[in-house]
Amino acid sequence: MPDQASPIRPKLVTACVVLIGDEVLSGRTRDANLGYISKHLNQIGVQVREARVIPDIEEVIVATINEVRATYDYVFTTGGIGPTHDDITADAMAKAFGVAIGHHPEAIAILEAHYKETGGEFTDARKRMARIPDTASLIANPLSKAPGFQIGNVFVMAGVPMVMQVMLDSLTGRLEGGATMQSRTVSAQIGEGTIAEQLGALQLRYPDIGIGSYPYYRGKVFGTSLVLRGVDEGMLDKATAEALVLLKGFGVEPIAGEAV
Amino acid sequence: MPDQASPIRPKLVTACVVLIGDEVLSGRTRDANLGYISKHLNQIGVQVREARVIPDIEEVIVATINEVRATYDYVFTTGGIGPTHDDITADAMAKAFGVAIGHHPEAIAILEAHYKETGGEFTDARKRMARIPDTASLIANPLSKAPGFQIGNVFVMAGVPMVMQVMLDSLTGRLEGGATMQSRTVSAQIGEGTIAEQLGALQLRYPDIGIGSYPYYRGKVFGTSLVLRGVDEGMLDKATAEALVLLKGFGVEPIAGEAV
Repeated sequence: MPDQASPIRPKLVTACVVLIGDEVLSGRTRDANLGYISKHLNQIGVQVREARVIPDIEEVIVATINEVRATYDYVFTTGGIGPTHDDITADAMAKAFGVAIGHHPEAIAILEAHYKETGGEFTDARKRMARIPDTASLIANPLSKAPGFQIGNVFVMAGVPMVMQVMLDSLTGRLEGGATMQSRTVSAQIGEGTIAEQLGALQLRYPDIGIGSYPYYRGKVFGTSLVLRGVDEGMLDKATAEALVLLKGFGVEPIAGEAV
Repeated sequence: MPDQASPIRPKLVTACVVLIGDEVLSGRTRDANLGYISKHLNQIGVQVREARVIPDIEEVIVATINEVRATYDYVFTTGGIGPTHDDITADAMAKAFGVAIGHHPEAIAILEAHYKETGGEFTDARKRMARIPDTASLIANPLSKAPGFQIGNVFVMAGVPMVMQVMLDSLTGRLEGGATMQSRTVSAQIGEGTIAEQLGALQLRYPDIGIGSYPYYRGKVFGTSLVLRGVDEGMLDKATAEALVLLKGFGVEPIAGEAV
């Protein structure tokens, strides 16, 4: 990617992920969506800079969405778009954007065809899944059909990971990405306290590369993984080479990647 | 717990969890702390109502902490209190509270004794872990010694799960809990769209019980788990009994607990 080495600083496109649901907050469910969304978006040049986990409470959803959609280029939400009474995300989005909400004809048609095919009854509760705020456009769900939607810079997706993932796939063409964050990891069996001073000096020499230091424990073996991140691959490789030299200077044999 | 059945509504004590670290945001690390903290705190009567994941950027930490410490009874943070240059949580907390920061004599003594015992050098970088904002009190870390700290209603803990967990244990006496949220789960092999209307009616009859509906997929088997939550155990048991009757009315055999 020759662009990345150019002296023009590539544009950073930012995002916030909002996980809507009591089940993650209470510890019943361990979130599996944030990491997936972050990695997926980075591949298309969108950087997740914040995530929030909030309960299924309308005023909290409205206030959170209105705060983060003004701060970040994009907002991605998961959860709360099913057929039951606790699925209040669509109504909350309409309120956040100050628009009306009703049954979206295309969403109704998709669900009607789906229930005709599967033999399920298209109940009023299931019609709830076709409630879409005015001005929103649908996000396709090839897996279980009930669509997500985009309103302004906010993308509203399902909470079930498999469904969220196909929705995210169907979004790709709609997102305008900027720079892609590249990363390199090196690990060694050494305490981070030992290397901290030299590592701080390395960070100062590479202000455009973020250097994270993460201690690890594998039974009785401990060590440190260094994660270097940046949009300029040439500079990233240079900084990584220096990190390897730094570690070797302490008499340990670093490996590329995570500790195994 | 006879208190829970009394007509006096028990006090809810609320908390926000702030996970500080680029590694969770980027998807490198899947967070293991939020669920643990939520469950642990609920046992002592503190309800986690929001969580945020933010990067290692001072102004973001300061703004987030000042927002959430004014909103919730307690704030719990994880991450960013190690010895390396990217560990900036303590300095950010001092800035958020408008106090000075320096080497805390008790923290220095704890670490000095630790490195004397283990034979490690007590470097300037390791002394960083004794930097504690003025007015803060220490949180004991029996595992790896470097302490966390409490400042105002904010509890600053390590990001490594084992270390965070012992810090949380050592906090118990300091937290004033209120009502404990109890929960009951029932599951059945039925789509949530089928039961949605009756479930909504059940929710209306029990406004003080939160009823969550969560679809599940196990290969070709799918179904719904209902999670009922509330502080009044008598009412919770009544609502759960009604949920079981509701499910049986559809000709399925519900089980107590999560689907297996």
